[in-house]
Amino acid sequence: MRKTLINGIDTDQLSVYDRSVQYGDGLFETIAVHDGEPRQWQRHMDRLQAGCARLLITPPDPDLLLQQVLSLSQGQRRAVIKIIVSRGIGERGFRISKDIPATIMVTISDWPEYPSDNRSRGVTITSCQTPLARQPRLAGTKHLNRMEQILARAEWTDEGIAEGILCDTGGNVIEGTMSNLFLIHSGVVITPELSHCGVAGTMRQLILEACEDSGIECRVEPVSLTQARDADEIFLTNSLIEVWPVRRWDDKTYTVNGVILTKLKNYINKKH
Amino acid sequence: MRKTLINGIDTDQLSVYDRSVQYGDGLFETIAVHDGEPRQWQRHMDRLQAGCARLLITPPDPDLLLQQVLSLSQGQRRAVIKIIVSRGIGERGFRISKDIPATIMVTISDWPEYPSDNRSRGVTITSCQTPLARQPRLAGTKHLNRMEQILARAEWTDEGIAEGILCDTGGNVIEGTMSNLFLIHSGVVITPELSHCGVAGTMRQLILEACEDSGIECRVEPVSLTQARDADEIFLTNSLIEVWPVRRWDDKTYTVNGVILTKLKNYINKKH
Repeated sequence: MRKTLINGIDTDQLSVYDRSVQYGDGLFETIAVHDGEPRQWQRHMDRLQAGCARLLITPPDPDLLLQQVLSLSQGQRRAVIKIIVSRGIGERGFRISKDIPATIMVTISDWPEYPSDNRSRGVTITSCQTPLARQPRLAGTKHLNRMEQILARAEWTDEGIAEGILCDTGGNVIEGTMSNLFLIHSGVVITPELSHCGVAGTMRQLILEACEDSGIECRVEPVSLTQARDADEIFLTNSLIEVWPVRRWDDKTYTVNGVILTKLKNYINKKH
Repeated sequence: MRKTLINGIDTDQLSVYDRSVQYGDGLFETIAVHDGEPRQWQRHMDRLQAGCARLLITPPDPDLLLQQVLSLSQGQRRAVIKIIVSRGIGERGFRISKDIPATIMVTISDWPEYPSDNRSRGVTITSCQTPLARQPRLAGTKHLNRMEQILARAEWTDEGIAEGILCDTGGNVIEGTMSNLFLIHSGVVITPELSHCGVAGTMRQLILEACEDSGIECRVEPVSLTQARDADEIFLTNSLIEVWPVRRWDDKTYTVNGVILTKLKNYINKKH
């Protein structure tokens, strides 16, 4: 199942002159739908608006967007909403034409079939060779330029590997191809800072708040590959998977669902 | 005037599920058409094929592509052909599905109205603040992830400025937003090496060959901003502009169309 509204119209056909096609000139959000309702709506909208401001894209009206999302989500027990906001249809060239309306694409699709025990038993991950480039002007935003993630995801085909971890060109661990990364080291939760690259996930933000509200020490800082692999526990987050503990990273194994992570998961469940 | 063939069909409507829309997952070429004929066709095809190999995209059949380009170009005195090769229509997620056919989009559009004396009198350029990220996996290829160029091009609105020059995050000068950069320093032609970022332009390649064939010393090496600005002459290249001498870079002025550059331009004219 896959169905799209483009600027509110039920169609899957887009102008080839849209700047998303020509340059990857836009942003996206991926949102979990449960029982007809988008989860963490306000967080997604906040990030989308912030991204539009950074990339000088006309932001969508959040009320209109919510109407479209709800109309697609109605009656869906579990589904995925993807919103793409492109700068719109442009003339030839990189220059931004003033006052062109953004193109809003809202797609609903089937819930992905991840193995059901990823959350309980944990997942196996690997290290990717593709580095993330350091680009402070784009760091943190969920823009449409995703060639790096595609090359990284192409590095493994083993169905038993759930995610690949990327370092930046400076050698720091940043994130997975589709998830943020957290470590637990002697009772302290650590996640890589994202001022040079990476996507600041909504679930990452929720975990940071969960730590603060629960009195769990949490640090956002540069993380080396060695530091990451030496953690006691590791977990991955995104809007759809929520939290996957890591059971194994290449040859190393980790504690799964210890006391701190269990506390964080309970916090997230209460927020829904 | 703008007209497109998508997979050989006369339409400007593309599936929103095409990976160019979703991820900027593809490559492009911009080709000058003069009197119904694409210029430097083989160079463009060589680069496109090399890009497809690097990005693991199914390469198009060059003969079929040429047929499409010629059918669009027929009767056009001067026009621009843009070819986009996207990985094709995919499922949700970064993973590359095997054996999906690439989407080939060929667009013809009007020749751009650059001031006619750019070639003779030279142009004014500026320095951009937006840095180019260093990404060896993508460096040199003309991929569809062009957010950096868009942010850089948005830095100036003065119609008198023809191009903006970008440095990488390491501080080296790389290229313009839409052109490659050459310096002439004490009779030696120098252009930045592109192993970390940048697009290896077809006209850049032609200039390198022109130097070799004409016995002009030419070096491809890292270039600092100071070194670039201290040059005797500077010029910009791309398929459409061919060669624009730089008359002024912010507060500095340069020799325009000196002996070496005149020799190089004559070489290029003979190659057409």
